[in-house]
Amino acid sequence: MENAHSTPTPQHQFSASERQALYRTIYSRRDVRGQFTDEPITPEMLSRVMMAAHYAPSVGFMQPWSFILIRSDETKQKVHALFTKAHGEAADMFDGDKRETYRNLKLEGILEAPLNICITCDKDRAGPVVIGRTHIPEMDLYSTVCAVQNLWLAARAEGLGMGWVSILDQERLKDVLDLPENVVPVAYLCLGHVSQFHDKPELQKAGWRPRLPIEELTHFEGFEQSADDAFATELFQNLRQEQKRIESGLSDAVGG
Amino acid sequence: MENAHSTPTPQHQFSASERQALYRTIYSRRDVRGQFTDEPITPEMLSRVMMAAHYAPSVGFMQPWSFILIRSDETKQKVHALFTKAHGEAADMFDGDKRETYRNLKLEGILEAPLNICITCDKDRAGPVVIGRTHIPEMDLYSTVCAVQNLWLAARAEGLGMGWVSILDQERLKDVLDLPENVVPVAYLCLGHVSQFHDKPELQKAGWRPRLPIEELTHFEGFEQSADDAFATELFQNLRQEQKRIESGLSDAVGG
Repeated sequence: MENAHSTPTPQHQFSASERQALYRTIYSRRDVRGQFTDEPITPEMLSRVMMAAHYAPSVGFMQPWSFILIRSDETKQKVHALFTKAHGEAADMFDGDKRETYRNLKLEGILEAPLNICITCDKDRAGPVVIGRTHIPEMDLYSTVCAVQNLWLAARAEGLGMGWVSILDQERLKDVLDLPENVVPVAYLCLGHVSQFHDKPELQKAGWRPRLPIEELTHFEGFEQSADDAFATELFQNLRQEQKRIESGLSDAVGG
Repeated sequence: MENAHSTPTPQHQFSASERQALYRTIYSRRDVRGQFTDEPITPEMLSRVMMAAHYAPSVGFMQPWSFILIRSDETKQKVHALFTKAHGEAADMFDGDKRETYRNLKLEGILEAPLNICITCDKDRAGPVVIGRTHIPEMDLYSTVCAVQNLWLAARAEGLGMGWVSILDQERLKDVLDLPENVVPVAYLCLGHVSQFHDKPELQKAGWRPRLPIEELTHFEGFEQSADDAFATELFQNLRQEQKRIESGLSDAVGG
């Protein structure tokens, strides 16, 4: 039965503790570049996190993703060489102090992580005309990113650290991984058990950029447009309080 | 203390029930086009789901997203007109039977949903040179999609249905929402309480496309390359069993 006043059936409702588990995963997820241990990822655990990715939303139910699992030192070394080259090029783009800070940041864990995964997007997966991709051709790439984010959250809940390495020449990466022309390497990921998770993003802790106040990013009806009704006022109060609570919770979680 | 053999501190570990809650959210999330009720979204709940989005990963901690909340019928009507135009153009791209099926699918809930949100990406948010975006310029768009997926999962756990409307001309949408040149409308979302969640994606139920077997999308070291060691064999067994279990679980969840 569907009408405007029916409420979801109980099996579709989530408990407060289930919601809390989701929010905890989201707030404690990190982009991990170090801290990898040598504990192997079991096939069971890998199966669970890959399946979380596979049940992401996709435009036209296209499911454009593939998973390339990289375990061999030989492939990792090739990708690491691509990173090293791109990283040097990137450093030269920053000025003065920022360049020195940039050089000191650890931005990948390719060789340390027991497993690397490249998640790709096959633009031909569902034929030339795809529902929902007719006007925004990037929708298949966006679907693939949804799979990446699902995998990231699942990894966090399983105690696996994950890092996204984006300082790579995509065309050279395609060569290393034998990708056909129509397949885009959307995300190169490093995955493994970790000794710890940082309380806050490393770039935030390093003073590179602060966490922005969400209220400054929230508009009504159009960009930079505000609203001053009771709903908007209450929303902004909640956003301020919630962000303050989350940030202080993240600090507490470290425990020194 | 960090070394290769230390294990995560207890406050960083997740319980089995927490992991289960995350997986339940992922597997029961839907792209919702109908079933919206007229129950309003409270500022408290909206604050929670927006905050989940704001704590997504972002390249160089750029946080390139903004949230444009659309409540007025006037704006919704303008966006709906864009959808209607694009939808007609899209239908003409499909052949024969597919075109008729396409026309009968419900692909948006712009007017029915109490709230629409456009999540945008400001390419200038962190200056011209951004860590991690130096070699893949799309990384800021990908970060924004991670925020969309976080919001989607949070919405599901809160009992809110969400739909992503991608059959829109992005340039015209920018006009309607007054977006500056450097701001990309990544996702136009419809959000609201719903009377029910479907057990499976509507395109799967409609026979448009099946859920693909994940084992066919899994490769080793390179595209379409296989492996036959014990780990790979066990992984494929797990993937098969897990996918079967999930699909039968989704059917059971309907309850007729």
